[in-house]
Amino acid sequence: MKTLLIKNVLLKDRKTDILVADGRFKSLCAPEGTRADETLDAEGTAILPPFYNTHTHAAMSLLRGYADDMPLQKWLQDYIWPYENKMTAQDIREGSRLAVREMIRTGTVFFSDMYFEIDQTIAVVQEFGIRAAIGVTFVDSHSKSQQADKLDMLRNWVDPSGGLITLTVAPHAIYTVSPDLLVKCADTARSLGLKLHIHLSETRQEVEDCLRAHGTTPVRYLDSLGFLGPDVIAAHVVHVDEQEAAILAGRGVTIAHCPCSNMKLASGIFPYKLLHEAGCRITLGTDGDSSNNNLDMREEMKFAALLAKVSSGDPEVLPAAEALEMATRSGAEAFGLDAGVIREGALADALLVRLDDPRMQPCHNLISNWVYAAGSSCIDCVICNGKIVMKRNG
Amino acid sequence: MKTLLIKNVLLKDRKTDILVADGRFKSLCAPEGTRADETLDAEGTAILPPFYNTHTHAAMSLLRGYADDMPLQKWLQDYIWPYENKMTAQDIREGSRLAVREMIRTGTVFFSDMYFEIDQTIAVVQEFGIRAAIGVTFVDSHSKSQQADKLDMLRNWVDPSGGLITLTVAPHAIYTVSPDLLVKCADTARSLGLKLHIHLSETRQEVEDCLRAHGTTPVRYLDSLGFLGPDVIAAHVVHVDEQEAAILAGRGVTIAHCPCSNMKLASGIFPYKLLHEAGCRITLGTDGDSSNNNLDMREEMKFAALLAKVSSGDPEVLPAAEALEMATRSGAEAFGLDAGVIREGALADALLVRLDDPRMQPCHNLISNWVYAAGSSCIDCVICNGKIVMKRNG
Repeated sequence: MKTLLIKNVLLKDRKTDILVADGRFKSLCAPEGTRADETLDAEGTAILPPFYNTHTHAAMSLLRGYADDMPLQKWLQDYIWPYENKMTAQDIREGSRLAVREMIRTGTVFFSDMYFEIDQTIAVVQEFGIRAAIGVTFVDSHSKSQQADKLDMLRNWVDPSGGLITLTVAPHAIYTVSPDLLVKCADTARSLGLKLHIHLSETRQEVEDCLRAHGTTPVRYLDSLGFLGPDVIAAHVVHVDEQEAAILAGRGVTIAHCPCSNMKLASGIFPYKLLHEAGCRITLGTDGDSSNNNLDMREEMKFAALLAKVSSGDPEVLPAAEALEMATRSGAEAFGLDAGVIREGALADALLVRLDDPRMQPCHNLISNWVYAAGSSCIDCVICNGKIVMKRNG
Repeated sequence: MKTLLIKNVLLKDRKTDILVADGRFKSLCAPEGTRADETLDAEGTAILPPFYNTHTHAAMSLLRGYADDMPLQKWLQDYIWPYENKMTAQDIREGSRLAVREMIRTGTVFFSDMYFEIDQTIAVVQEFGIRAAIGVTFVDSHSKSQQADKLDMLRNWVDPSGGLITLTVAPHAIYTVSPDLLVKCADTARSLGLKLHIHLSETRQEVEDCLRAHGTTPVRYLDSLGFLGPDVIAAHVVHVDEQEAAILAGRGVTIAHCPCSNMKLASGIFPYKLLHEAGCRITLGTDGDSSNNNLDMREEMKFAALLAKVSSGDPEVLPAAEALEMATRSGAEAFGLDAGVIREGALADALLVRLDDPRMQPCHNLISNWVYAAGSSCIDCVICNGKIVMKRNG
């Protein structure tokens, strides 16, 4: 049993020693004289939960800044798709590596991905020792044999990391996946106990096309197929009405809110207040580097909070603690991880955040400072599953 | 004449040596063998203009996180004002010092301030060697003798830094300053050749109150007093109509757009497209740490750009290069500084930004990476007036 002792760390409002054993928080108040295999002097830092990024496309880091400030269709058709068509497995490996390096440095220990050549991304996640839920993507344009291979992969999956990596069944979106294939995806996921990951109601265009094709809106359409449930992670969910919010809440769907991407592509303003008041579980995602253009969940929390306030006209909406919860515990819970919170017994994922950075001073309210004022440069150390995956100084 | 040689730095798309002499860029392509009093090896970095923050309240850094997520009136009356009433000159000194440290670390070399006990802030600016335009604030509630002292200070001002610090005449806002005093401020500024700095059309409440009190909107009201001109820096300007945008453009007013503050306080969505298309000069400010809650102009650029896109429904609005210009050259120009651009002859203010940070890779487009993807941690060195004011490594 590997143990780690985090000494002199600020936990909420008191300084303490924290013992980690076998990947979990064993004691948040270790007695003096406690010994461990490894000891970390965390003087001058506070311990906070790390980030769980519930929607991204890691290898798209290679497309960071490749095309910006243009309409979605032009962006996709003239830039993103032609670039992606030329990407090799080695490119995906490099792109995933760049993304995971960026994620770790910005405090993320888990990401829910949707892309291709996923073996490459899985290898990189394993290499760096963080967590991921890697989507096996389904679209109509894949051949029958490609789809069969994907189903085989899902059925025969063995996590090479021994618990850090899982697969999700990821039909891309309602406009790229037929109703039959959507149903097949849902059935497969449910028979294997896997999560479903899908883009949903991202743009007004998607809603209009769905109305034309199916006579109803995207959420209602998916619900009519029996697709929606507590195992679904729906990314974006920008264009929904009150009744759709109630459907999503009733089915226990997890929403992966991606404020930067929605704003940068001008997809629309996420109806936070509506979805939150309906009782939806809202988590946070960065989307890919190509539409954000980073994977910095600290920045994403601030965007989520400030956008929710100004769009609702109410500064009390989405307070700092709620933003942190979205980006941490809610994301972890959505993927069945007992993590995202510093609690005895929980998985030992954590950040140590420096308190001497000017942005963190004074400290009237640590959570407010972290959400609204900090930068990822305040992160001194990132711990995942009880192991140090990044330490800035020393 | 003090000289600085910046070697091996990326300038746009080529690597070069840059010679700075006597506070200005002397050569952007210094020949081999050039010698200087000081040499900086900038290998692995790009040179970019630093930030000019056109609206802030530096010493409010002490109130960072003191009160968040509440309506403006409650925030002001129950938290901000009672706290400010207890602030001493020493507090203002400490708050200004914290703010200037934060600004320098995040790449800002100039700020336009509006607060009290300004001698303290001036001393701190001098201590750190950056630039500032410090507002001498006017409100009706000051006594006659206080106002007389302020007018004396303006008339007898001698910049202790020899060129880095200037004063502005800063009537707080139309709802705290009478028309007579507004006119007196404008006359004073114009007779002394100083800029005017004022809060304007920040909230819907301000517009409604102005309509009730003066029968017209804030911009029209100020214009009727002869207040508006190319020497005016108007902060916020959230609630304006098309005709007001034309008035502001026609008078050559500079707008200090503060997206984070407007969003966090839910003041409203800045009408970027309207004001930009009307031809207004739009610059960028952070407002104080108490309503942002940081002074990070890199983050502010991203907020400005993404908010303009999503609110206009047009992803082509406020592209990256325009956001950078707002935060750099436009701000400098508004204060008469030949700076904010890396050009021979211009004032030698600059940032050296590390290119090896994952967020800056790959580099399809340096400006896009800087505006959308970077973090202030990518800043390796800050140069103001030809002097290194911050160097992270070595």
